[in-house]
Amino acid sequence: MRNLKLTLAYDGTGFHGWQVQPNLLTVQGVLQQALQGLFNHEVTVTGSGRTDRGVHAAGQVANTQTIRTMDTAAVVRGLNALLPAEVRVLQVEEVDAGFHARHSARSKTYEYHIWRQQIVSPFRCRYVYVFPYPLNAETIDQASGCFVGTHDFTSFCASSTESEDRVRTIYAIEWDRTEEEWVLRIRGDGFLQYMVRTIVGTLLYVGSGKLQVHHIPEIFHARDRRLAGPCVPPHGLHLLRVDY
Amino acid sequence: MRNLKLTLAYDGTGFHGWQVQPNLLTVQGVLQQALQGLFNHEVTVTGSGRTDRGVHAAGQVANTQTIRTMDTAAVVRGLNALLPAEVRVLQVEEVDAGFHARHSARSKTYEYHIWRQQIVSPFRCRYVYVFPYPLNAETIDQASGCFVGTHDFTSFCASSTESEDRVRTIYAIEWDRTEEEWVLRIRGDGFLQYMVRTIVGTLLYVGSGKLQVHHIPEIFHARDRRLAGPCVPPHGLHLLRVDY
Repeated sequence: MRNLKLTLAYDGTGFHGWQVQPNLLTVQGVLQQALQGLFNHEVTVTGSGRTDRGVHAAGQVANTQTIRTMDTAAVVRGLNALLPAEVRVLQVEEVDAGFHARHSARSKTYEYHIWRQQIVSPFRCRYVYVFPYPLNAETIDQASGCFVGTHDFTSFCASSTESEDRVRTIYAIEWDRTEEEWVLRIRGDGFLQYMVRTIVGTLLYVGSGKLQVHHIPEIFHARDRRLAGPCVPPHGLHLLRVDY
Repeated sequence: MRNLKLTLAYDGTGFHGWQVQPNLLTVQGVLQQALQGLFNHEVTVTGSGRTDRGVHAAGQVANTQTIRTMDTAAVVRGLNALLPAEVRVLQVEEVDAGFHARHSARSKTYEYHIWRQQIVSPFRCRYVYVFPYPLNAETIDQASGCFVGTHDFTSFCASSTESEDRVRTIYAIEWDRTEEEWVLRIRGDGFLQYMVRTIVGTLLYVGSGKLQVHHIPEIFHARDRRLAGPCVPPHGLHLLRVDY
């Protein structure tokens, strides 16, 4: 059996997220279908993690096993011929049997795109969250620093999160700002459900003066989701890359 | 009666072009409907020109008359609240009664986007024409120069073009090239139907070696559409701006 690592980009707009669900269009679902069409045997695809409904990816990673000997460039071409245009396979590499898209991942980088003007470009509206209200960039930068490092993120994930272990390490947070768009880029060893979106919602609360920078360590300490800001919408979120 | 100049952006993917047609979704149609909803009287919208089905606009211009005294910022907000997200009103200005979006236009600028890689980003696929084959940039630049100036464009427009006068002036043609995308930017006093797309198709023929640079003046002279290259697809075409 060969183990293949797939790097994927997708526009999440029309999908019910990554994970296969009966009778719903999912990225994992269309990918498994394309792989089965190409290899003519049953396949299982393992993603680096689930992306929620509406979330996009510029560099999601998955792996799958096959008995076929087809070269990797032919797998790329074959899959892209079978997949809808909203999902593209960017790269296929043959990897060691031990490679596992989720367990082997060392870090993930997400971006969250915030549109800062009243009027949203029709070419960007599917990929940005519109927040044209005043924001204090300086307090946002200060508060962003509070998230870097190893913390228990119980206050900053879905209250329904299944994981018992909610300790994660954030390696870096940075903001790129233009007049039109503010982009948060965050890299960490892993992310709990809704974690990036809740961090962004909390930072927007800080930037709007609804929370103060000194509240962030207090919210971490309380381990209470209700103290953090809201979870911002999924369509501003992009899984940029997964590093191994 | 006030005369209002509207500047619009739209993603043409889901529209049957600019011009109103019975029972079809058109940009002019949704715009007239939104204006009537806002002003509560019949309106007619005049565009700077029709864009074909699938063509996009970053800066289309139209004008319309109203008896309402609503300030222009409120018209922008009101229209954007009523329009689908694929159409945005960027600006509304009150102009002289003599302003006519089509007749007063002095020049138009279009862009044509060509994707130069095998794999198209799912975020760009609606806005680019995929042409990943070898092209000679130098001969394309030479041939592009042949289009600048005042010419009879009979060989480079739809053979069904209604206008008797097919003489137009091209002020400038330039190419921006990255590894991923080649963009043609063309400015002229006016464009016949399929004219930009036929010029692009002809330039791709030159870049592929199917036509030589010296053929361009010959094709102009022959006034025969069959001698030029193909009309490339609409979804790579963007009306960038109209100048008055």
